[in-house]
Amino acid sequence: MAIPLTLGTLSFLLAVIWGAPLIRWLKANGIGKQIRIEEPESNQVKMGTPTMGGIMIIVPVVVITVTLNIFNLMSGTVVGGSVLAPLLTMVSYGALGAYDDWMGLRGARGAVGLLGRYKILAQIVLAALIAVILYFPLDIHSIAIPTIPQKIDLGLAYIPIAVFIIVGTANAVNFTDGLDSLAGWVTAFGFAAYGVIAFLQQQIYLVTFCFIMVGALLAFLWYNAHPAELFMGDVGSMALGSTLAVVALMTGQWLLLPLIGIIFVAEAISVILQVGYFKLTKGKRLFKKTPIHYHFLLLGWSEMQVVQRFWLVGLLAAMLGVALALL
Amino acid sequence: MAIPLTLGTLSFLLAVIWGAPLIRWLKANGIGKQIRIEEPESNQVKMGTPTMGGIMIIVPVVVITVTLNIFNLMSGTVVGGSVLAPLLTMVSYGALGAYDDWMGLRGARGAVGLLGRYKILAQIVLAALIAVILYFPLDIHSIAIPTIPQKIDLGLAYIPIAVFIIVGTANAVNFTDGLDSLAGWVTAFGFAAYGVIAFLQQQIYLVTFCFIMVGALLAFLWYNAHPAELFMGDVGSMALGSTLAVVALMTGQWLLLPLIGIIFVAEAISVILQVGYFKLTKGKRLFKKTPIHYHFLLLGWSEMQVVQRFWLVGLLAAMLGVALALL
Repeated sequence: MAIPLTLGTLSFLLAVIWGAPLIRWLKANGIGKQIRIEEPESNQVKMGTPTMGGIMIIVPVVVITVTLNIFNLMSGTVVGGSVLAPLLTMVSYGALGAYDDWMGLRGARGAVGLLGRYKILAQIVLAALIAVILYFPLDIHSIAIPTIPQKIDLGLAYIPIAVFIIVGTANAVNFTDGLDSLAGWVTAFGFAAYGVIAFLQQQIYLVTFCFIMVGALLAFLWYNAHPAELFMGDVGSMALGSTLAVVALMTGQWLLLPLIGIIFVAEAISVILQVGYFKLTKGKRLFKKTPIHYHFLLLGWSEMQVVQRFWLVGLLAAMLGVALALL
Repeated sequence: MAIPLTLGTLSFLLAVIWGAPLIRWLKANGIGKQIRIEEPESNQVKMGTPTMGGIMIIVPVVVITVTLNIFNLMSGTVVGGSVLAPLLTMVSYGALGAYDDWMGLRGARGAVGLLGRYKILAQIVLAALIAVILYFPLDIHSIAIPTIPQKIDLGLAYIPIAVFIIVGTANAVNFTDGLDSLAGWVTAFGFAAYGVIAFLQQQIYLVTFCFIMVGALLAFLWYNAHPAELFMGDVGSMALGSTLAVVALMTGQWLLLPLIGIIFVAEAISVILQVGYFKLTKGKRLFKKTPIHYHFLLLGWSEMQVVQRFWLVGLLAAMLGVALALL
């Protein structure tokens, strides 16, 4: 655990240092947030703040993880090639998110990037590829149930389940990313929790990967403190959500993901319920506004109250998730 | 680890639930913050916000810890009486802080409670009592040095060292408590880090105590989110700082306390340097304003940027502290 925690700190330092020139470059190239017209007025001040900050997280994680693996290969240490699965997920989903961010930026004001149906199709294809990689070369296709010592093999049913978890988590994190530092901290808690769970399973490569992610996320949060100097963008939320899902799948303890990622689940379900109820009742709303963080803002909580209380719930849920994994 | 984490959640729930009526009671009885005239104008809006929120943390921790110990006694489990030392510290330092808060509230506007020299004297006397309890009945008088397997016995020199650590940490946390949620989160990270260190040493009672503290602190943070509905007051900062110091002493890993509590150290040292430099140069200042969080505010960082960046440094330092304890 000493090495993962130290590498996490290294990852933080690397990301914080290269973050400053990255933000300047994004600004100079006009890669700033386009605010949708229907968003609250308080969000209008965010117009022009650099986005695509996910790149700030992805690059140092790739650099450190790849360097580490090359170093291990050269020194003859056995390499758990398994870390390539989350790395590949992060890069491919990040690229998908980046394309979407880019189209949104190039499009007219109010444009929202890739058309919904093509976006989800691309996500499913990628997730299927990742699920197959997990299934065949890595031989991961089981579920761990707290209190039951033996993991249960799911056979080929594992693949559609894994696809659902990867696509679902990526989009849920995307919904969560609406207030400064909200998605960043909650995702960091999630990776830390799965880092501890992987540690309990002695999957040291996965532990290391998780804490490198945590370090880079904390660096992003340095610049994302309200008022944010940088947003993560779809490149961030897509990469983070999908990678967290893959890490959860690799521990087998993905049944705990809805608990450890309770905030992501709440945000996604609030949107689904809102849309469903609206259609069913032909115009009524369940929440004042979704994703649900807006609902609490409109109830009169301050932005920091919403964000900090969501963190607290996310952190406690992550703690409980780790506790359940220990049973 | 499953039980401490679950009890932490219980502690959170208990504290959050009783927090709401406590805040109403504090408000109804006029126990609100008196702002010193020399504080920045932005702080003037905080006038009247209920203080003495430390009580919200202390009561549930005492209730849960005492109940747990009675339960263990009755069921015949061997009780590590050692948990009484941090509990006693928390209650006695909390009482000292509460007296100070109370005198400040009763005094004229601008009054600052107990006179400095009597306050420090009372703290030293209490700390000496605690150090003696650690030394004699609990037989704790050694130092752990990372990478060295054996703890080193310090003999009677341990007592003045322990006094210095307890008094120093209590006052350092007190200096840190100047912006919403700053001291709360950093203290929570500190207790979590020492909880993990105690876990590595199999001091399960101490692990449990640490996570009960973390849970109660998170509950306090629920109400302390900017704009705070409740401040911790001296009752909070005194109790938290002294208790964190005692927990650190009980793990033997107190050499790591200046790292794990790096924010507290930075805040305290900034004040000492500022005062010293001012006296030496007959009127010059090293920082724009101390404790050092004000310095960054005056440099133009937003309140959330100062607070979040201090959290990040505190969290990374806590992670590194745990890593060092593992060597």
